[in-house]
Amino acid sequence: MYRIGIDLGGTNIAVGVVNENYEIVAHHSVPTGASRPAEEVIRDMGDAVEAVLVKAGVSIDQCESMGIGSPGNCDSERGVVARAYNLGWFDVPVCAMLQERFGIPVRLSNDANCAALAETVAGAAVGCENMVLITLGTGVGGGIIIDGKIYAGMRSAGAELGHMLLVLDGEPCTCGRKGCWETYASATALIRQAKKAAADHPESLLAQAEEITGLAVFQAADKGDAVAQAVIDQYCVYVAAGFTDLVNSLAPEMILLGGGISRQGERILAPMREYVMNNCFGQKDGAIPVIKAAALGNEAGIIGAAAL
Amino acid sequence: MYRIGIDLGGTNIAVGVVNENYEIVAHHSVPTGASRPAEEVIRDMGDAVEAVLVKAGVSIDQCESMGIGSPGNCDSERGVVARAYNLGWFDVPVCAMLQERFGIPVRLSNDANCAALAETVAGAAVGCENMVLITLGTGVGGGIIIDGKIYAGMRSAGAELGHMLLVLDGEPCTCGRKGCWETYASATALIRQAKKAAADHPESLLAQAEEITGLAVFQAADKGDAVAQAVIDQYCVYVAAGFTDLVNSLAPEMILLGGGISRQGERILAPMREYVMNNCFGQKDGAIPVIKAAALGNEAGIIGAAAL
Repeated sequence: MYRIGIDLGGTNIAVGVVNENYEIVAHHSVPTGASRPAEEVIRDMGDAVEAVLVKAGVSIDQCESMGIGSPGNCDSERGVVARAYNLGWFDVPVCAMLQERFGIPVRLSNDANCAALAETVAGAAVGCENMVLITLGTGVGGGIIIDGKIYAGMRSAGAELGHMLLVLDGEPCTCGRKGCWETYASATALIRQAKKAAADHPESLLAQAEEITGLAVFQAADKGDAVAQAVIDQYCVYVAAGFTDLVNSLAPEMILLGGGISRQGERILAPMREYVMNNCFGQKDGAIPVIKAAALGNEAGIIGAAAL
Repeated sequence: MYRIGIDLGGTNIAVGVVNENYEIVAHHSVPTGASRPAEEVIRDMGDAVEAVLVKAGVSIDQCESMGIGSPGNCDSERGVVARAYNLGWFDVPVCAMLQERFGIPVRLSNDANCAALAETVAGAAVGCENMVLITLGTGVGGGIIIDGKIYAGMRSAGAELGHMLLVLDGEPCTCGRKGCWETYASATALIRQAKKAAADHPESLLAQAEEITGLAVFQAADKGDAVAQAVIDQYCVYVAAGFTDLVNSLAPEMILLGGGISRQGERILAPMREYVMNNCFGQKDGAIPVIKAAALGNEAGIIGAAAL
């Protein structure tokens, strides 16, 4: 049997058919056109499913289920996208609509949760029962797997891990709170921290970069710029302080790091591991998880949705 | 059938027999004598079990299981107290030793986890699948219930919720980290905050208290002392900021507050609820849990251990 995964994004709808090993056997993508009514977007999602089935040479009868990974707050139990600002969706019963069209079970979860699940079925966390995936991007996304399943709590509203505190009454966050982890540990935050360092140190290579991006900070450090390296060192502390909270609260077997910054690999993972070991409860005798980079990248959305 | 619960403390071993409604039908208590070898303490635990069975008029054959709530880090899977500093126990296989003597299954968990479980079977959280109990005392203790069961993570080392950050590099914590929630939100922290306020405001009633205890702060506020009230207001923010982190990460249906301070009831619970509603992800549309006081007090240890 096969499964269908739909990665619903603000820009594109990516659909895939996966086999029993969670390998994507066919892939199809169409623009979301998120400004349109939800019904039209969902009709296009269905059309994309039909297109990908043709590409895969698989009939819907050979598919046991369909899954959707959506941005925003998704109520998995009811199969409803409760609130997705970048889709303009509020209380959209997407599962029921696709289930009616295709006649197979349709499941839904937040895209960050799907990415975490994908890593456990086909990525860096295969065989791991309890793990957390943290994705560093515009914000800090989180997905929690407990007993091999997505854990999202009441109304699937949990795992907003970027909105745990790092500093009470600290930097203002888009969520309305102050001092959330993501205001220090997102890629956006790294750029803000680097811009401040560049302004404070006009002599640095960092200050001479054409545009300060996350990558530019690492490139300046590569060229021996101490200011850029200090920004990275402090950023690793911010990320790892949040990891330490996850260790002390959830004691997962593994913490995976996703997002573009995770491609920096050991240069950021090694200091993060050291910080966690020195700061978690019990320090080196504590429940130190494996900390490494996520493996699946862009495919995680489809694979995780299919695995729902 | 009955169950036996053992609440192993640094001072006393409290043993109870509970019926199928988790009511304690008999109770027996002996001093722990924690300075002795673990074998002697465990022999006394066994003797206390025999004594309480006599009191209850129940034979061991009528008991389906025995549970132990222990301080420190307990590996529930192996039935071993891994590290309990105030017992001086390290890697003590207490379950195997009692199981050999009594021939019924013996289970083990941390006392904070047992207290949380007790509230779900017989206290303020009956019927609640996902909840967190926070106990304010010398430290801030935590117990997490997910899907009706204790969640403690790898090597049962999780749920050290008092050691999540409130302020990166803030007040030093006994765990070695700086800025842990418990350095701001424990009863110990309240007293420290009140002492500082008293020193800063020698004209306040608080400064005239014979001894500044947690209760003295509330009593001074009762008499209209604005300094004491300001300490309480800020303390509620500290506690509620941690609650907000729990909402954003775990989205529990309920957060219960335990420990002596919880007896202050609505005067602290109401401002905490308001803070959570104004600060959690999604604010008033977020996954606001029920927030109220725990119900079981000292009996929680025995009931929770019996429910393991």
